[in-house]
Amino acid sequence: MLPKPAVPAAAVPSPFRSKAEREHDRAEKREAVLLAAVRMFNARGYHAASLDDVAASLGVSKPTIYHYLGNKEQVLVECVNRGLSMLREAADTAAGAPGSGHDRLRAFLLRYACINMDDFGRCVIRTNEEVLSMDSAIRFRARKREIDDAVRGLIAEGVADGSIAPVDVRFASFALAGALNWPARWHDPDGPLSPEEIAEKLVDIALGGLTPRR
Amino acid sequence: MLPKPAVPAAAVPSPFRSKAEREHDRAEKREAVLLAAVRMFNARGYHAASLDDVAASLGVSKPTIYHYLGNKEQVLVECVNRGLSMLREAADTAAGAPGSGHDRLRAFLLRYACINMDDFGRCVIRTNEEVLSMDSAIRFRARKREIDDAVRGLIAEGVADGSIAPVDVRFASFALAGALNWPARWHDPDGPLSPEEIAEKLVDIALGGLTPRR
Repeated sequence: MLPKPAVPAAAVPSPFRSKAEREHDRAEKREAVLLAAVRMFNARGYHAASLDDVAASLGVSKPTIYHYLGNKEQVLVECVNRGLSMLREAADTAAGAPGSGHDRLRAFLLRYACINMDDFGRCVIRTNEEVLSMDSAIRFRARKREIDDAVRGLIAEGVADGSIAPVDVRFASFALAGALNWPARWHDPDGPLSPEEIAEKLVDIALGGLTPRR
Repeated sequence: MLPKPAVPAAAVPSPFRSKAEREHDRAEKREAVLLAAVRMFNARGYHAASLDDVAASLGVSKPTIYHYLGNKEQVLVECVNRGLSMLREAADTAAGAPGSGHDRLRAFLLRYACINMDDFGRCVIRTNEEVLSMDSAIRFRARKREIDDAVRGLIAEGVADGSIAPVDVRFASFALAGALNWPARWHDPDGPLSPEEIAEKLVDIALGGLTPRR
């Protein structure tokens, strides 16, 4: 017997989500968990921060956090990696930009300061290596070192092209990093000035100095 | 019967310590406990630091630490207070010194940077308010604020007498504090440069800036 020709069935709108929708959902949920966690770490410090509270703030249980991001240290590592990637991207952009060393350093520092006032950058600054496992601490230090090397490279280029005074490159990078990391400790996200305004004031003082120019 | 006249006894050298000696001993022991504790806090972070290990490093038991300094938070508070007192003293010295605002600011900053690389100053910088009780955190913040006000006062005097450029005093104090607090995180006490040498390099860059003077 020949098979009957297929009769097209009337389409039922599917209540099931497509694979693309499920992947989008998953990514969105993971982001929300990560953001809730980084804000908890920044507000309370790593030791006092609790994944139970992060979960509760999102109306889910702790195993849901484990499912998306892993244990507490893994969540922290993901947070600092996110901040480090933002800094790395800013450094790469500055390295490839046109202009004098001074101009590119200034552009990078403005971005650097803003990232350090944002959730993930703040977490990079506030995280002490002591709280990480040995392996994570080594990777954390290596990635911070990359950013530091990028700053030194920009300073050295500026010294070479005459747009930056003949400073000690290493100590200049320490002084700039300190001046622009510190807002991660005192900046109030609800304060009157935007991170961009604060960044501009700090970068101009750090580059211009306090000694009068006569 | 009349009492016999007292016959002077031959003096026995006393194996007992005098009151003055006992007080000196006690102060010396308290200092040793405090120094061992601050180094433990700085090396491991407050949460991972253990008073048992501090005690063991001095060959005593934990109750001995309690006896001299109190519980773990009290020990930390004593450590940060010691650092804050050193900073306060440096600020008072600068306020009463002769010279322009710039000269006095520079002298203060050199001392400030050195204290921040030393045990107790390092502890001030590395201690996050989150680890303190509410009362201690409020006092800690108030005492840090005094130091910050002193820096702002020196900058403002320099701006007024023309020895410092007309900068935004508040942001200048933030930039300087950041540049000179940061060594508490990266300075290696066993490194080749002395704190005084590092302080001078950082202060000169922070005051002079990176933009060339033409």
